[in-house]
Amino acid sequence: MIKVAVNGYGTIGKRVADAVTAQPDMEVVGVAKTSVSADAYIAKQRGYPLYIADLGKKAAFEKAGIEIAGDVEAMFKAADIIVDATPGGVGEKNRPIYEKLGKKAIFQGGEAHEVAGFSFNAHVNYKEAQEHRFARIVSCNSTGLVRIIHTLDQAFGVERVRAVMVRRASDPGDVKRGPVDATVLNPATIPSHHGPDVNTVLPHINIVTLAMIVPTTFMHMHAIQMDLKKETTRDEVLQVFKNHSRIGIVRKDTGIKSNAQLREYAQDLRRPRADVWENGIFEESVSVLDGKEFYCFQAIHQEADVIPENVDCIRAMMGTVKDPQESIRMTNEALNFVAIR
Amino acid sequence: MIKVAVNGYGTIGKRVADAVTAQPDMEVVGVAKTSVSADAYIAKQRGYPLYIADLGKKAAFEKAGIEIAGDVEAMFKAADIIVDATPGGVGEKNRPIYEKLGKKAIFQGGEAHEVAGFSFNAHVNYKEAQEHRFARIVSCNSTGLVRIIHTLDQAFGVERVRAVMVRRASDPGDVKRGPVDATVLNPATIPSHHGPDVNTVLPHINIVTLAMIVPTTFMHMHAIQMDLKKETTRDEVLQVFKNHSRIGIVRKDTGIKSNAQLREYAQDLRRPRADVWENGIFEESVSVLDGKEFYCFQAIHQEADVIPENVDCIRAMMGTVKDPQESIRMTNEALNFVAIR
Amino acid sequence: MIKVAVNGYGTIGKRVADAVTAQPDMEVVGVAKTSVSADAYIAKQRGYPLYIADLGKKAAFEKAGIEIAGDVEAMFKAADIIVDATPGGVGEKNRPIYEKLGKKAIFQGGEAHEVAGFSFNAHVNYKEAQEHRFARIVSCNSTGLVRIIHTLDQAFGVERVRAVMVRRASDPGDVKRGPVDATVLNPATIPSHHGPDVNTVLPHINIVTLAMIVPTTFMHMHAIQMDLKKETTRDEVLQVFKNHSRIGIVRKDTGIKSNAQLREYAQDLRRPRADVWENGIFEESVSVLDGKEFYCFQAIHQEADVIPENVDCIRAMMGTVKDPQESIRMTNEALNFVAIR
Amino acid sequence: MIKVAVNGYGTIGKRVADAVTAQPDMEVVGVAKTSVSADAYIAKQRGYPLYIADLGKKAAFEKAGIEIAGDVEAMFKAADIIVDATPGGVGEKNRPIYEKLGKKAIFQGGEAHEVAGFSFNAHVNYKEAQEHRFARIVSCNSTGLVRIIHTLDQAFGVERVRAVMVRRASDPGDVKRGPVDATVLNPATIPSHHGPDVNTVLPHINIVTLAMIVPTTFMHMHAIQMDLKKETTRDEVLQVFKNHSRIGIVRKDTGIKSNAQLREYAQDLRRPRADVWENGIFEESVSVLDGKEFYCFQAIHQEADVIPENVDCIRAMMGTVKDPQESIRMTNEALNFVAIR
Repeated sequence: MIKVAVNGYGTIGKRVADAVTAQPDMEVVGVAKTSVSADAYIAKQRGYPLYIADLGKKAAFEKAGIEIAGDVEAMFKAADIIVDATPGGVGEKNRPIYEKLGKKAIFQGGEAHEVAGFSFNAHVNYKEAQEHRFARIVSCNSTGLVRIIHTLDQAFGVERVRAVMVRRASDPGDVKRGPVDATVLNPATIPSHHGPDVNTVLPHINIVTLAMIVPTTFMHMHAIQMDLKKETTRDEVLQVFKNHSRIGIVRKDTGIKSNAQLREYAQDLRRPRADVWENGIFEESVSVLDGKEFYCFQAIHQEADVIPENVDCIRAMMGTVKDPQESIRMTNEALNFVAIR
Repeated sequence: MIKVAVNGYGTIGKRVADAVTAQPDMEVVGVAKTSVSADAYIAKQRGYPLYIADLGKKAAFEKAGIEIAGDVEAMFKAADIIVDATPGGVGEKNRPIYEKLGKKAIFQGGEAHEVAGFSFNAHVNYKEAQEHRFARIVSCNSTGLVRIIHTLDQAFGVERVRAVMVRRASDPGDVKRGPVDATVLNPATIPSHHGPDVNTVLPHINIVTLAMIVPTTFMHMHAIQMDLKKETTRDEVLQVFKNHSRIGIVRKDTGIKSNAQLREYAQDLRRPRADVWENGIFEESVSVLDGKEFYCFQAIHQEADVIPENVDCIRAMMGTVKDPQESIRMTNEALNFVAIR
Repeated sequence: MIKVAVNGYGTIGKRVADAVTAQPDMEVVGVAKTSVSADAYIAKQRGYPLYIADLGKKAAFEKAGIEIAGDVEAMFKAADIIVDATPGGVGEKNRPIYEKLGKKAIFQGGEAHEVAGFSFNAHVNYKEAQEHRFARIVSCNSTGLVRIIHTLDQAFGVERVRAVMVRRASDPGDVKRGPVDATVLNPATIPSHHGPDVNTVLPHINIVTLAMIVPTTFMHMHAIQMDLKKETTRDEVLQVFKNHSRIGIVRKDTGIKSNAQLREYAQDLRRPRADVWENGIFEESVSVLDGKEFYCFQAIHQEADVIPENVDCIRAMMGTVKDPQESIRMTNEALNFVAIR
Repeated sequence: MIKVAVNGYGTIGKRVADAVTAQPDMEVVGVAKTSVSADAYIAKQRGYPLYIADLGKKAAFEKAGIEIAGDVEAMFKAADIIVDATPGGVGEKNRPIYEKLGKKAIFQGGEAHEVAGFSFNAHVNYKEAQEHRFARIVSCNSTGLVRIIHTLDQAFGVERVRAVMVRRASDPGDVKRGPVDATVLNPATIPSHHGPDVNTVLPHINIVTLAMIVPTTFMHMHAIQMDLKKETTRDEVLQVFKNHSRIGIVRKDTGIKSNAQLREYAQDLRRPRADVWENGIFEESVSVLDGKEFYCFQAIHQEADVIPENVDCIRAMMGTVKDPQESIRMTNEALNFVAIR
C-alpha cells in the first residue's frame, strides 16, 4: 500500500483523499488543514487523521470536537508521497520541506512548471514520471486541453489549435469571488498563458488560447478549433473520442446544452460531489469542416478533472505500476467511473 | 409493499422515486415522463419502468435506447397511490383521472389547496391524512415555515410570525429562468400568499410573509421573526430545534454562512443530490430579544425538503403506519438522514 | 424633415426615437406601445405622441395619466417611414400593413432577412438601400461583426473569420430571462446561424461562428480570429480601426477589461443610457500572429450598436443624403458621438 | 463660493464632484486619485484638477495624457472643506492630516462614527453640523433607513423597527467581488450593525436589522416593518412619503417590481449615471395592517443616495445656509431632481 499524505484539504485535497482511499493499492495517512471549518468536519467524518501546521491551534480544533493527530511534519514523515493541494503559490514554499525530508511530492496547476520541473498527464507522459522526485499536475483547463489535443494529434496530427476558454468565476462553495454581472477578459492580452502551459506536457503543439471569466460556478466551457494534418470525418473523430477513457460524449438525446445541466446529470448519476472527471464534449457540437478543420465545445469540471490524474501520478512516481493504461484502468474502475455517454 | 406511481419525473419526481425505493415498505411501480431527456436516461439507469402519456412518442424513446413500459393509465392502474409531481397546475387536470380510476393521489405545492382539499405536514396533521383520498404537500417554502412555526408554537406559543423570504430564482438545472442581476419583488404587494398557504396546515397561526426573488439556484433564505407567548431563552430554543428530526442546526464552527456553503457541506456528506431535507437553521443567527422576540435565518432546499413529507404522506394515507413519529423515524432512517449539526 | 414612426417603444424603439429626434433632418411623428408601463411614461416625458394598436385600451392609459394620440394605423399614415422595433417575429406580421399603406419600413435583426429582402449596414451597402421599400438592420451581433470584418477586408483582405460569441443572457431591465448560473451553448451545433446572417450583408466572407449565453446583462463579448490575405502588423490594424468612426478602441491605460467596466465608463462619459454605439475593441487584445493571423476581443452593446444604423438607413432609404460618409457623419455628430478611445 | 476638495475619485467621489459642480454656491478645487485608471480619464474629461498623493507617479499619469495639478496636500490647502471619499478605513488615517491643516472634512459611512464624532442626515440634524469640524455621512443603507424612519416617526411615532436588508454584492463596475450564486448572511448574527448605525443619527429609535448579500449590482432592497404609535392608514402614509423630497414612490402603473427595472427607469429619465438619489418605495408594497403595523419594500441605490446628503452637509458645516429645507431645495434643484413618482 502506497502511503499518501494530502497537504491542504480543500476543493482538490478532499477529492484526492477520497479517490486515493477508493484505490486498492494506496491509502491516506493523513490530511492537513489550517483552521476549523466545514472541511475539517468532513475530514473527521471520513476518518482521515487530521494534521495541522501550527500546533498552537490544536485547542481550537479540539473545542470544536475535532481530534488532531499531530503536526504536518509528522504527517509528511509517515508518507511515501505527498499530494500538495495547498492554494496556488504555497506549494513552492513547501517544496524545500519535502526535499529536506526526502519525500516525493505532487503539486497542482496553481504552481509554476518550474516548481516541479515536470508536468504530468497520464495519457501523455506517465512513464517519465518515475524519474522525477517532483511532478505537477497541469491545471484543470490545461488537463482538459491536453486530453483532447493529444488524442486528435495521435489520430490525425494537429497543425494548430485555437481555443477560447470561458471560465467559471468561482467554485460553488466560494462566496467571495465574483464578478456578479460581467464578462472579464483574463487576460485581456492574446494569447493567454494557457497555451504555454499545455506545451509543458505537449511541447510540439502549436496552440493559441484566449480566456475570459463569466459569472458561473460549475465547469469551464471551451470552444475549440484545430487544423488537422489528415482529412477526417465527424464520425471518425467521435470514434476516437469514444476510445479515450477520460473523454465523455454528452449525447444529443439528453438535451444537455450547458454546464449546469451536465452537473445535474452527473449528480443524478450519483457521482460523488457531482464530479465530472472526464472532458464533457457535446456530441452535437463536434464538427469537421472542409475535411481538416475540427470544432467542438467541451465542458471542463475545474474541481474534478485533475483528480484521476493525481492518482495515476502517484503510481507513476512510485513505480508500482509500469503501464499507463493499467493505472488508468485501475483508477477509473476504483472510482466506478464510466465516461458519460 | 405499497405500490407507488410517480407521475412526472423531474426535480421532485426523481427524488420521490429514489426516496420511496429506499423505504422498506413501499416500491416504485413506474414513473412517467413526456419526452426524451436526461431525466429519462436517469429513470432507465435506476431501472424504473417508464410510462408515457402519448404512446405516439414511443418510437422516439426507443430510438434513444429507452424502453417504454406502457401508457400512464396502465401505470396508474398498477399503483395503490400516485405521487403527482407534474408542473404546477397540471395536477388539477390530472385529478379527475385519478378519481375515475379510484386511486389515492398526492399533489405538490404548485397546486392550490382546493385541488386536494387537504394540505399535509408530517409533524402537524399526519393522522388526518387517512380520511382523505387526496392530499397536497405544501410548497417547499411553506413546509420550511410550518416546521419551525409548529415546533415553537408547541413549545412557547406563537403570537405572530413575520417572515421575509429571499427565494432562489431557478433550480440548478434550469437554464431558462432568471433574473440575471435583479432582486424582484414577488409579489410586490404585502403580505404575500405564503402566509395563507401556511394556514392551510396551521390555521390558527397569525402570519405575515414578504417574498422576493434573487439570482441564486440553491435554497431559499428565510429571515424569520416571531413574537412568542411565553418568555424563553436562546438556549431553550436551540434545544427545541435539536429535538426536531427535520430541523438541522448549521453549527457556527463550520463557518457556513450561506446556502452555497451549506450545499457544499451536504455534498461532502455524500447526501444524494446534495439534498438538504431538513430546515437549515444557522446556529449563530438564533436570537431571543427581550425574552419573547425570536429571530433566525433558515435555508430551505427547494428541491428536497418536501421529499420526506411525500414519503410520510404515502404511509399516512395508506394507513399502514398509524403513528406519525414511527413513520418519520422510518423515513429518516431509510434516507440515512441524520440532521445536519 | 423626414417623418418617422417608431412601432414598438421598448429597448430598441426608445433609443431609435431619441436618436431620430437628435437629428437635424428628421422627426418622430409617433411611437406605439401595447400596454401601460414604465416605457409609456418615458414616451410621455419625452413628448412623443403615443399610439396604440387596440383603442379598447385607451381608458387604461388615460387612467394612468397618459394621453393617447390615436391608433397605430393613424401613426403609420402620418409617417414617411416606419421603424419597426416590435419583438422578433412580429415585424413579419406587420409587413403587409406597411405594404398596404404604401409605406417604407425598417425591420430589426429579430426578423429573417427574407422579411425585408435587404439587410443593411451603413458602411457596406448604404447606396443600395434607396432601391428598397423594406430594409432590415442586422442583429447587434451581426452589426458588430460586419463592421470589423468589412474594415479589415477593405484594408488587408479576409480569407476566413472564426468568431466565438459570448452573449449576454438578458437585457438589464429584463427580470424574467436567465440563466442564473450556467454557460449555455446556443446553439450547441457548430457553426451557429450568425455567420450566414453576416453573409446577408457581406456575401463573399468565409465565416464560422460559435455562440453561447452567459449570465450577464451588458454587452456581448466576441473573441475574433481572422486569417488575412495580406501581411500586416498590430499597429497597422489599430490604425485601420481608429479610422473607422464606429469602432472604439478601449485604451489599455483605462484598465478596462470587461463589459461591466466599459459600461461604467460610457455612463461616466454621460452617454445617454450608457449606450456604446460603436464596437468596443480592447486595445490590449489586438494581435497579429505570424503576420497574417489577426485576433481581438470586442464588446458589443446589444441595445445600442444598431441605433445609428437605423438612423442612417432612414436617410439611405428616403434618398435625402446620397453619400454614406455624409450620413454617418451627421448621425454621429447629432449623437455627439466621439468613439471611445 | 465654497471651495471643495474631493479626496478619492471613485464611485462616491466622482458623484460628489459632479453634484458640487452643479450647485450655485460651491465649486470643486480638485480631486485626488492614486493611479491611472478610467476614473482619471473622467476627471480629465470633466476638467477637475487632479492631485495625487505620491508625486513619484506623476510621470505615469502624464504618459497616459493626464495632467497632474500637484500633491494632495496642496489640494487640501486650496479647499475650505474636504469630502473624504476614500475606501473605508482610509478616512481614519487621513483625519490627522485634515486636523493639522485646520480643515473641515466630511467622511463617508465606511468610517466608524467615532472618526468624525458626528453623523449627519439633512432632514434630521442639519443645524447641529455647524458646530462640528468633522462630520460623517452614514452609509447608503443607514441613510435610506433614517429617511423613512424619521419621517414616519415625525408623523405617527415609531415604537419599533424591524428591517431585513437584501444587499447588492458589488457595485456595477466592480468585477472582483462576488458571490456568483449564493445568498450570504452578512452578518450571520442577529441583529446586524445597521441598527446601531441608524442610532448614531436617530438615537431614540428602537430598531432591529438583519442583513444578507445577494448576487446583484444595483440597489439594496429593504423589507421594512414598523410598529407605529398612532393608528393610521395606507393613504396617510403614502401622503407623508409624497411630502418628503427624498422619498420617491415607484408607481404601480409603471410595472416596476425590481431594482433592475427601477434603474432602467432612472436611466430612461436621463438621470446622470442612472442615479436614484431618493429612497425608491414601491407603491404597491405600502401596507398598514391592524392600524399600526406598517410594511413596505424600498430600493436604495448604494452609489447615489448619500450624494445629496454630502452636498447639504457641506453647506451645513460651512454655515452658509442656515435652514435645512432651503439647502435641501437648493441641492435637489441643482441636480434637477424631482422624486420618482
